[in-house]
Amino acid sequence: MKRNVLIIGAGGVAHVVAHKCAQHNAVLGEVHIASRTPAKAQNIVRSIQARHGMNHPGLVQAHGLNALDVRATAALIRATGARIVIQAGTSFLNMSVLAACIETGAAYIDTAIHEDPSKTCEAPPWYANYEWKQAQACAAAGVTAVLGAGFDPGVVNAYARLAVDELFDEVRSIDIIDTNAGSHEKYFATNFDPEINFREFTGSVWSWQQGRWQENRMFEERREWELPVVGRQTTYLTGHDEIHSLSTHLNVPDIRFWMGFSDHYINVFTVLNSLGLLSEKPVRTDGGQEVVPLKVVKAVLPDPASLASSYQGKTCIGDLIRGVKDGKPHEALIYNVCDHQAAYREVGSQAVSYTAGVPAAAAALLIASGVWDTGSMNNIEQLPPRPWLQLLETMGLPTRIRDAFGDRKLLSPCGALLKAA
Amino acid sequence: MKRNVLIIGAGGVAHVVAHKCAQHNAVLGEVHIASRTPAKAQNIVRSIQARHGMNHPGLVQAHGLNALDVRATAALIRATGARIVIQAGTSFLNMSVLAACIETGAAYIDTAIHEDPSKTCEAPPWYANYEWKQAQACAAAGVTAVLGAGFDPGVVNAYARLAVDELFDEVRSIDIIDTNAGSHEKYFATNFDPEINFREFTGSVWSWQQGRWQENRMFEERREWELPVVGRQTTYLTGHDEIHSLSTHLNVPDIRFWMGFSDHYINVFTVLNSLGLLSEKPVRTDGGQEVVPLKVVKAVLPDPASLASSYQGKTCIGDLIRGVKDGKPHEALIYNVCDHQAAYREVGSQAVSYTAGVPAAAAALLIASGVWDTGSMNNIEQLPPRPWLQLLETMGLPTRIRDAFGDRKLLSPCGALLKAA
Repeated sequence: MKRNVLIIGAGGVAHVVAHKCAQHNAVLGEVHIASRTPAKAQNIVRSIQARHGMNHPGLVQAHGLNALDVRATAALIRATGARIVIQAGTSFLNMSVLAACIETGAAYIDTAIHEDPSKTCEAPPWYANYEWKQAQACAAAGVTAVLGAGFDPGVVNAYARLAVDELFDEVRSIDIIDTNAGSHEKYFATNFDPEINFREFTGSVWSWQQGRWQENRMFEERREWELPVVGRQTTYLTGHDEIHSLSTHLNVPDIRFWMGFSDHYINVFTVLNSLGLLSEKPVRTDGGQEVVPLKVVKAVLPDPASLASSYQGKTCIGDLIRGVKDGKPHEALIYNVCDHQAAYREVGSQAVSYTAGVPAAAAALLIASGVWDTGSMNNIEQLPPRPWLQLLETMGLPTRIRDAFGDRKLLSPCGALLKAA
Repeated sequence: MKRNVLIIGAGGVAHVVAHKCAQHNAVLGEVHIASRTPAKAQNIVRSIQARHGMNHPGLVQAHGLNALDVRATAALIRATGARIVIQAGTSFLNMSVLAACIETGAAYIDTAIHEDPSKTCEAPPWYANYEWKQAQACAAAGVTAVLGAGFDPGVVNAYARLAVDELFDEVRSIDIIDTNAGSHEKYFATNFDPEINFREFTGSVWSWQQGRWQENRMFEERREWELPVVGRQTTYLTGHDEIHSLSTHLNVPDIRFWMGFSDHYINVFTVLNSLGLLSEKPVRTDGGQEVVPLKVVKAVLPDPASLASSYQGKTCIGDLIRGVKDGKPHEALIYNVCDHQAAYREVGSQAVSYTAGVPAAAAALLIASGVWDTGSMNNIEQLPPRPWLQLLETMGLPTRIRDAFGDRKLLSPCGALLKAA
């Protein structure tokens, strides 16, 4: 039984992860939260205390840490006795945190692919440039590393695995659809760190089509979907983390990711991007100051965490799977709908942070209890999906399916596949 | 005869002023150009030399100067022997340059109202907050100061004066219309210093209506006009320098300013402004850097001077005057049309800089020759308009009029009013 969790980061996702770990501290033990800005970690501790958010008496503690510093991170892992580290900070930190886990033997979980600050879009498969290079080191050290354990990447990978293994005889395409039909009251805001958010859309769009990588421009391919609860949603073909692993691990010819965008979002994005204001390359003002434009855009945008209290509506994220079952064409949408206000009432976050953070805490529970404690590096689709999806049924992210037989829950409380009525 | 000219600034307008002064250096004597960045002033010297732009052998010289430093500016005035100073730098410099002129007895010319970096829109009449407070000091020192001697403010004030004095029995309204039907090849660019350009549109819009100040929001009032040469143009009620003096000096109940904007310009402006990226107030990035967002926007936008070579099309700027003549309602549009490519061929600038810079050089000629050397401070409408408009006939900015009698030149080469055919 691995115990004591160290959460890296103190943004929106870390906030949810910490709350969910605290709700399960009888299994997970102490909850430690480390941020470059200790006051932000302390705010999370206070939020948990204010909601009486621990199911057992125990320690929840904030720490200051520069997680780019491997030695400092390893020292904090040792000092806290953490056996599970959840990297919920900026994606720039993955590789240094993973190195500290390999050094200390602690298990590693993250929710997004590693990013190099100097690059905005990498050659596929992106994981091969960073995380996968450490797979042998993990195996040699017996370190469990679970990559991309948020919602997307994460739960959508588990949906895909389940579809391939149990719901279809053959899967021909996986279209991952991520929509947010919620609304905040700001003129414009991103739902998570603007720096990471915009990076997703400034480079090329890589998708896996007919068994090979296809490159498109952002906003080149538009598609509308009729989705459960949230209704008609407009999405665009977008590059995304999970395509870089699913294309390697599943034998499926078409794997695409579609992100929902309003016309207003696209307009603001297009203006900022066309002017060069989303650039990571410094410019020089006529006063001689060197400034990264994207950092200034981030500074003027609302803090994503500040949106939560007024956020209304729901997200709908899922996999539209097409293939063959019993010799006939078959199609199923496996999905979750999450309500912004419900998430806020429970943990003080909006649904975008909630859907990313809850699965990571559930992954920690599976490592702690040994179910996913493989002593090796895996993407989500390499792990058994049912125990995780079963946990998410009771942790706030239930799975539904819509197919020719109707729209219904997919799993029973004990994790059995429910039959269509 | 006042001789030797010192031009403050080395941007687009200063470039034109310097070229036009060089073309008339037989009258004006030496031409000195001072900039905080001496290399920019040197570039103007080189441009004049490359075009053989002096009509007489003589000195054109670049200098480095921080024109906020009154002592340094006065010292440069003395060192160059300049008796006329043309403030063609950023509007933040007016008051320090004027102080240096009062100290040294040199004549002062500018092309825009003084601005305080910490304020974006001031209580009307704006001139009363800055320049007019120095009117007595100018008179006491016998210093000639001509305020707002560009096109707008500037030539449009002279059009208004001429209409009130000679073309109408009674003027009831003056609508100043500033349109640019030209196009550059950039996604977006401002035609002059973005910092000054955007400041015009971020505060309230002050106009003079029914004999008092009216406050509107930017883009609240839209009007379309059918204009000569450039055709149908969309404009918006905008605050502008000349309303602040014309409302004091002319007894006209309605004085409004209409600036032409494309839908694309308004969209980009609205996005930037709504996000707070046009703010002059510093924000702090999460790296702890203090940055003024507007300075970063300026840094990523194209240098207005860089637009000139590819700029196509024409500007049309003028006054639509309505009133009474010979007991009957009368309406006249007094205007100039300026061609971007023609301006570029002559002095290497686009028409927006050209229309602002040429009148200032013409004003210098009138001071040098004594016609406008009043030994006091005046806005353009307080000075006789005909000598200036007559000079502009031959300097590149001829005046036309369109009224019930047709569309024709307004002045003969000797400055006489032409009768309608």
